[in-house]
Amino acid sequence: MIQVVILGTGNVASHLIKSFESASNVEVVQVFNRNCSGFDELSFKGKTTTEISNLVNADCYIIAVPDDAVQTLSAHIPFENRLVVHTSGSVSLNELDSKNRRGVFYPLQTFSKEREVDFSEIPVCIEAEHAADLKILNTLALSVTKSVFEVNSDKRKQLHLAAVFICNFVNHLYQIGYELTEDNGIPFSILKPLIRETASKIEHASPEAMQTGPAKRNDIKTIEKHLHLLDQPLQKEIYKLLSQSIQETYGREKL
Amino acid sequence: MIQVVILGTGNVASHLIKSFESASNVEVVQVFNRNCSGFDELSFKGKTTTEISNLVNADCYIIAVPDDAVQTLSAHIPFENRLVVHTSGSVSLNELDSKNRRGVFYPLQTFSKEREVDFSEIPVCIEAEHAADLKILNTLALSVTKSVFEVNSDKRKQLHLAAVFICNFVNHLYQIGYELTEDNGIPFSILKPLIRETASKIEHASPEAMQTGPAKRNDIKTIEKHLHLLDQPLQKEIYKLLSQSIQETYGREKL
Repeated sequence: MIQVVILGTGNVASHLIKSFESASNVEVVQVFNRNCSGFDELSFKGKTTTEISNLVNADCYIIAVPDDAVQTLSAHIPFENRLVVHTSGSVSLNELDSKNRRGVFYPLQTFSKEREVDFSEIPVCIEAEHAADLKILNTLALSVTKSVFEVNSDKRKQLHLAAVFICNFVNHLYQIGYELTEDNGIPFSILKPLIRETASKIEHASPEAMQTGPAKRNDIKTIEKHLHLLDQPLQKEIYKLLSQSIQETYGREKL
Repeated sequence: MIQVVILGTGNVASHLIKSFESASNVEVVQVFNRNCSGFDELSFKGKTTTEISNLVNADCYIIAVPDDAVQTLSAHIPFENRLVVHTSGSVSLNELDSKNRRGVFYPLQTFSKEREVDFSEIPVCIEAEHAADLKILNTLALSVTKSVFEVNSDKRKQLHLAAVFICNFVNHLYQIGYELTEDNGIPFSILKPLIRETASKIEHASPEAMQTGPAKRNDIKTIEKHLHLLDQPLQKEIYKLLSQSIQETYGREKL
């Protein structure tokens, strides 16, 4: 049985707690948060604390707080030489305080509190200073997912950056699609089969091979019609820039 | 039985032919293409012609050629007062020659020749000058899909523009994600669960409610780290512009 303490009560923390609680070989022995309001939204029934000095013994301490709070929190941990990991894509292992054995447990997924996720499909990227700790993190990861990758800090940063493009930015394009339909009296739901198919297409082919549309065809007439239809300046800029990038990818002339 | 002639042998044409051929109440009586090489890739075993003067009698003529060829082809059709429709999102009904009864049959999907699609899930947007023709197009659409929408030319253009954002541009962001992973020795497949979840999340919630990431959190430190990691100027511009657009959507200050 691996005993873990979770530090944090945000999206990542709450999904981790839920997943570990349904794993047979992991026990969440405590949840820490700076203020007690965070505990209200958790379904967690075990020990909680708002005092860092009250942390109990465990095999692994998982810091799941906003990126810019990781370093400070790790420095305030009142013990040494235990396994302390964070869950952030963009924070180096080195940003954790070196008084403890450091590691990373980064689930590559987008979490919203109100949405259930199937953790078993989520890739977890692990990293540790010591081989024995990597083994603990591997066991911990395998208790909640079938997909574990050993990824060092440099590669994890690239991965996190790529994730911003294919998740956060993609969702923002969905948002623009939402505005362009709903603002014109068209239900957004009409676009959903196309959203699904666009995501499915790249399961078994490269995105490059699956590219379609006016910019790929270098169909200047349609591109100009579209720019004329757009009245929000930022949307117009996004349309221009992404079209230009597609055209350059496929070796066509610039807009 | 509705008899149709398909004009064109591209992606949309070939998927339409396949779907109509498996419908019980539609017969593809002829396929026209300017040159005979296009027929080779079709599985179609019926009549074909490369001569516009040889078009046979049918209830509906479906022009499925590149957008900029629709108008000219419709003008060359050697008869009058029959139902002639195109399949384009961005072309007005009015661009069809007025000597025939005009209409639109626009399947809102991304087609690649090598990829099978389930037509029954594809929304088809129809438009016609005459009520009787709209009825024919509705029957035709219902023979291949469960999802038919009557959409006029103005709304269809907005819809096509929205589709460029949520399909073509989204796929290009997948392509950038592909480059950022594969170029750094990380398999692109590690991103696929996140791509799937990002698309699934908006099935039952608005994209606005599902937005996550550094720009949404106004996490300037991470944004700056990411810009530093990107070495391709266009990717850097795309990162900046989409982050700015997300920040403005959520009322935060500009980069």
